[in-house]
Amino acid sequence: MTEDALIARYFAPLAGPGADGLRDDAATLTPSPGHDLVLTADAIVAGVHYFPEDPPASIARKALGVNLSDLAAKGARPRGYLLTLALPPDWTEPWLAGLTDGLREAAEAFGCPLLGGDTVRAAGPALLGVTALGEVPAGTMVRRPTARIGDRICVTGTIGDAALGLALRLAPDAAWVAGLGEAERDHLRDRYLHPRPRLALAATLRRYASAAMDVSDGLVGDLAKMLRGAGRGATVDLADIPLSPAAARAVAAAPDLLGTALTGGDDYEIVCTVAPDHLDAFRGEALAAGVPLAVIGSVEADAGAPVFRDGEGASRSFAAGAFSHF
Amino acid sequence: MTEDALIARYFAPLAGPGADGLRDDAATLTPSPGHDLVLTADAIVAGVHYFPEDPPASIARKALGVNLSDLAAKGARPRGYLLTLALPPDWTEPWLAGLTDGLREAAEAFGCPLLGGDTVRAAGPALLGVTALGEVPAGTMVRRPTARIGDRICVTGTIGDAALGLALRLAPDAAWVAGLGEAERDHLRDRYLHPRPRLALAATLRRYASAAMDVSDGLVGDLAKMLRGAGRGATVDLADIPLSPAAARAVAAAPDLLGTALTGGDDYEIVCTVAPDHLDAFRGEALAAGVPLAVIGSVEADAGAPVFRDGEGASRSFAAGAFSHF
Repeated sequence: MTEDALIARYFAPLAGPGADGLRDDAATLTPSPGHDLVLTADAIVAGVHYFPEDPPASIARKALGVNLSDLAAKGARPRGYLLTLALPPDWTEPWLAGLTDGLREAAEAFGCPLLGGDTVRAAGPALLGVTALGEVPAGTMVRRPTARIGDRICVTGTIGDAALGLALRLAPDAAWVAGLGEAERDHLRDRYLHPRPRLALAATLRRYASAAMDVSDGLVGDLAKMLRGAGRGATVDLADIPLSPAAARAVAAAPDLLGTALTGGDDYEIVCTVAPDHLDAFRGEALAAGVPLAVIGSVEADAGAPVFRDGEGASRSFAAGAFSHF
Repeated sequence: MTEDALIARYFAPLAGPGADGLRDDAATLTPSPGHDLVLTADAIVAGVHYFPEDPPASIARKALGVNLSDLAAKGARPRGYLLTLALPPDWTEPWLAGLTDGLREAAEAFGCPLLGGDTVRAAGPALLGVTALGEVPAGTMVRRPTARIGDRICVTGTIGDAALGLALRLAPDAAWVAGLGEAERDHLRDRYLHPRPRLALAATLRRYASAAMDVSDGLVGDLAKMLRGAGRGATVDLADIPLSPAAARAVAAAPDLLGTALTGGDDYEIVCTVAPDHLDAFRGEALAAGVPLAVIGSVEADAGAPVFRDGEGASRSFAAGAFSHF
């Protein structure tokens, strides 16, 4: 199968407005009047960011989801994406069909059509490199290094599920795994496989967040990175970090898993800072948007790694720091 | 070295306006008022699109050049690019330093700064995936399938040098290679290594070309693809296809190399169609822009593969059709 035939069969049906059925060498995109484009690129590689045996539709969902999570954290509405796909020597048409089915479903769910890309063969693992484009009203992209002293630190959803889902897959016979119900195991595995970018919160972040980023490399490391950029520190109450019932049960069975949950990757939740005066309005809008929100701490003047306090007020440190996909 | 340290040392110095030193998770880009963005993505892979032992600065130039060639053919002015870089297990800092030096030089030469990207490790060959963004006045992107009957077919520069440069590297002891002077061999090798996107012609193409694309997979196959989209055919005079002195000497020594020259890849010239009434103005502006131009044939009503005529009026066919990098 030639590259042109492959594009016509598998990718052309995914093409959005401006991509003209992928029949040209480039696509056009016009931002809404008065808007900036927001650009981000993240790649996932078989054996590094996902298991080669994962369902291809899940791999597709992850490739798009990890990028749209960045757009959501920046307050942007998706406009489209380009895909660089490196196919390994053993690729098959059913795998590619599953992948493109997953891309279509994810793009529809996220409102982010395909605008272009490239398919290459490589004598190595499969790689999906996505460039995602979103837009915000001019000058309103939510930035990372702009937290202010006294701001409250908020996170969406629950933290650590994906890291525990990965741990579960790497050591399915661990004692803590046996203590979970099947639905709890499914929940953790699903969180690892299927990022849920918090696009519903994007407009609310633009209105109220002083700084934001998505949590992709572990809450501990990502929060530290966000505040390092601002030259600030923080105190966080461990008890306020939201855990799912499955994660809470896992951590109760094996307390060391708290470190895994807080320093592992792939949450694709949002951590942000909000001035105290805006907190009620922010929480109200998040609730209306259906996005669970927890306040976990405050930004403090002292630069340095955030301090995590347990129920007795003692500070805990997490040796792993940030998870690294690299 | 962590990914963050690698970004700070090697990539942050390349960041353009809107990328804020790569200190955030996304960049902003605002098209000029009244302009559309033009988007394209092309990846190059070690051992497929270049030799792993090529100088890293040349690899960088190629990664950016093949993308900007697409922008040029669409009449677009570059605005910036995002880079997905997959590093093989044996990557070294000197290699990365050479690569980023090459990216900086090419980005300056082409007026196209780095806006973002991602660096991943992969248990396979190095891969550079570029997404390039340009802009055109709204609605003026030069399209591929819009050639009209009677239009003249033009190509920039010279055709086949890069394909012969590749052939020379694959078979340096071939008889035809020995017949070339050292400067001629250098010319062919350089054309393979270093695409020269025809950005100087972009505005002229917008004014006069009815259709255009860049020649990346061989003139024979690319012209056929352009006209297939229009449902048209063409007659091309082989004698009018511009060859460099080095390519002409190679073809004189080994006539079969004409097929290599016309169906091999990596020219990164532009093939376009221009209405006869516009031809003089188009040629005048190309001359003023310093872009050599040749008229090689005409668009005809009959659909079907373009016919290539030799000096006696006999038609020649080229079995290889289009070169495939895939």
